Amino acid sequence: MQSNIYNFFYPRSVCIAGASTKEKSIGFEILNTIKKYGYKGKIYPVNPKAEEILGYKCYSSVEEIEERIDLGIVVVPKKFAKDTIQSLLNKDVKSIILITAGFKEIGPEGEKAEEEILKLISDHNARLVGPNCMGVINTSDEIKLNATFVAEQPENGKVGFLSQSGALGAAVLNSLRETNIKFAHFISVGNKADINENDILSFWNQDDSIEIITMYLESFENGVEFIRTHLTSGLNKPVLILKAGKTSGGMKAASSHTGALSGEDRVVDAIMDQFGIIRCNDLNELFNSAKGFEFFPMPDGNKIAVVTNAGGPAILTVDAIENNGLVLAELSEQTKSRLREIVHPEGSVNNPVDLLPGGDANTYKRVNEILLEDDSVDAVISIFVEPVMVPPMPVIEGINSIESDKPVFQVAMPLPEFWENYRINSKYGK
Amino acid sequence: MQSNIYNFFYPRSVCIAGASTKEKSIGFEILNTIKKYGYKGKIYPVNPKAEEILGYKCYSSVEEIEERIDLGIVVVPKKFAKDTIQSLLNKDVKSIILITAGFKEIGPEGEKAEEEILKLISDHNARLVGPNCMGVINTSDEIKLNATFVAEQPENGKVGFLSQSGALGAAVLNSLRETNIKFAHFISVGNKADINENDILSFWNQDDSIEIITMYLESFENGVEFIRTHLTSGLNKPVLILKAGKTSGGMKAASSHTGALSGEDRVVDAIMDQFGIIRCNDLNELFNSAKGFEFFPMPDGNKIAVVTNAGGPAILTVDAIENNGLVLAELSEQTKSRLREIVHPEGSVNNPVDLLPGGDANTYKRVNEILLEDDSVDAVISIFVEPVMVPPMPVIEGINSIESDKPVFQVAMPLPEFWENYRINSKYGK
Repeated sequence: MQSNIYNFFYPRSVCIAGASTKEKSIGFEILNTIKKYGYKGKIYPVNPKAEEILGYKCYSSVEEIEERIDLGIVVVPKKFAKDTIQSLLNKDVKSIILITAGFKEIGPEGEKAEEEILKLISDHNARLVGPNCMGVINTSDEIKLNATFVAEQPENGKVGFLSQSGALGAAVLNSLRETNIKFAHFISVGNKADINENDILSFWNQDDSIEIITMYLESFENGVEFIRTHLTSGLNKPVLILKAGKTSGGMKAASSHTGALSGEDRVVDAIMDQFGIIRCNDLNELFNSAKGFEFFPMPDGNKIAVVTNAGGPAILTVDAIENNGLVLAELSEQTKSRLREIVHPEGSVNNPVDLLPGGDANTYKRVNEILLEDDSVDAVISIFVEPVMVPPMPVIEGINSIESDKPVFQVAMPLPEFWENYRINSKYGK
Repeated sequence: MQSNIYNFFYPRSVCIAGASTKEKSIGFEILNTIKKYGYKGKIYPVNPKAEEILGYKCYSSVEEIEERIDLGIVVVPKKFAKDTIQSLLNKDVKSIILITAGFKEIGPEGEKAEEEILKLISDHNARLVGPNCMGVINTSDEIKLNATFVAEQPENGKVGFLSQSGALGAAVLNSLRETNIKFAHFISVGNKADINENDILSFWNQDDSIEIITMYLESFENGVEFIRTHLTSGLNKPVLILKAGKTSGGMKAASSHTGALSGEDRVVDAIMDQFGIIRCNDLNELFNSAKGFEFFPMPDGNKIAVVTNAGGPAILTVDAIENNGLVLAELSEQTKSRLREIVHPEGSVNNPVDLLPGGDANTYKRVNEILLEDDSVDAVISIFVEPVMVPPMPVIEGINSIESDKPVFQVAMPLPEFWENYRINSKYGK
């Protein structure tokens, strides 16, 4: 069964109710973004005062559209929101995004208006994203929908990202070129009047294009339901959460911002930990962890071997290993004797394995391979600080070329000239 | 009195014993780096087999140099190290850097050789940096000495950086263009046979070109002496330490690497905390904190006001504030009533002050000014996520132009196009 959620990410046609001819208005920018990103479906802008916008035929009302609409996107002023949604429901549109703000988040009056809309939606068996949100993205080649007002061109990846905060979502999208994060789907859920993190968790768990689930949350709409959804999903996709409102001040700020209760933080921590949900402390951690799952095979355990040509970075690495619930692998005697044949006698064949500054590309590659063959090693961290006499590219590419079911994480500190060269000349350099 | 430490950073002449004609050798690269960085003093390379290197007249022995040598840099193979140092001491050189490795760090034999050299140094009332180190840098216009084999061109700043690890020092120097860290002095202390962090702490506390002291340490040579030096310095310069070997594994790794005992970590933590030394957890934290001291006035207290146009980033900021020993300022009634006149009625005049996405440059500037005038506010964090309708440059430049004795920290999340424009067109954009 295709849920009504499906059409938020895979619509074959979208209607933009409140499309505008005025640059920099949301009603213009969202249509412009959809066009520029190359949406593969049909586009129906609605605006009673325009004949066409950005080359698209413009309809004076929703009623005037004769074709089927999979997804209705509403950006009209809030006083027109309810009527617009009614007209979409009358046309049997079951998936509606209400971008417009000024509802529950501004007080009792807005809350009342939001409840009225929610009742309409519910009466028609439809589903609503928002209000007070910034839209959805599906980067897949078959859909190519960027229905947000952030004019970035996100690249296709395997990560789903849900943001309770529109601004934070926008900030993440704005910095994609610098961070090189790649999404499959993005959704801004705003006030979560209807669709919330539980619906999306459930949907993404079923959707094959999503391999890693990331969320920025300020509140759990229904924590028990979240855990139940997580547990009944097969637990085959990593779920990473950045939950704001950790401190009492943060909780107070979250509550005044969204009108939602953000929950006792220690409880949130304990439950996430118990059920294998990964809690991240900031955006960098959220997306770097997601990249870890995207680019590395899953290790079988927590035993790490370290290779290095320099003491200092290795010591910091060991600290980081132990501070993050990992342990230094105890190398087998066989591994040590194999290492002894190729490691400089003044170096070390104990973990961390120290090749000294003279360690070259061949030695690095062989040592990594030997460590990966040791059953007591679950993953390898290979550190290389460029010394004067060893060119970095062969070292780094040699390790890149190793094929293993275990993760090999490279920490490379070459001269700055290296990176441009790597981007151009290495197939891993993107 | 000018200590013998002085000539490590301010030599008018340097002798490179072991200078080489062979590219990629340390004896060549160090001379090349000194030349390219534009050292203002006299340079005397010593190599029995060369007439000249890189355009400098080459001496066949130290004895052959008639002029005074302020700083001797020794890069000869370790079997010649002792004799070379003896010849420098015979010429009354009081400051010697022994770059060469293969001493205490490789075992008992190396330890014995290191002790013999140390005795020579001590008998002549000289001072030694190293062995097993990568040299010193003074970026000041009068000296311009980069006596390391890292061919970067560090810019002049106010930070002193000491690294116990040569490789880590090299990695930091290699990434200066990306991190935009600016040093006054850099020193790699290696095995710390003679000169250690206590000597440098004492020297930098007296040296006017150093305003912030940063150190990467794997061990304290004499912790009591370090604290004493710190306390008797007038406590007028921030001291920031990245101390590796926090975990038991890290401590073991540090001990096997340097032969030094790294100390019970909780004791290190408690003592640093008690005496106002800032302990950082990684390189980013070390240098970002140093930049904080470099670019911001010192706040009088820990009460922070937050301005934002977006809820999510403000909540994460409040979490960060409370997790780092700061508190949200309680704004005065007068401040709130002044804010009420300019903040959108659906926004918030409580801390965090929320201007909503419509907050423009004038509003941002005035709100920041009003908050800074409140006696209950020690510092302001101003967050701006670029919405469709508000251009970022006037917002950011407006806040940049505020003059205040209190720190104003801007968090800007504009479209990626912005940064290039900012680097070119803003005087703050470097």
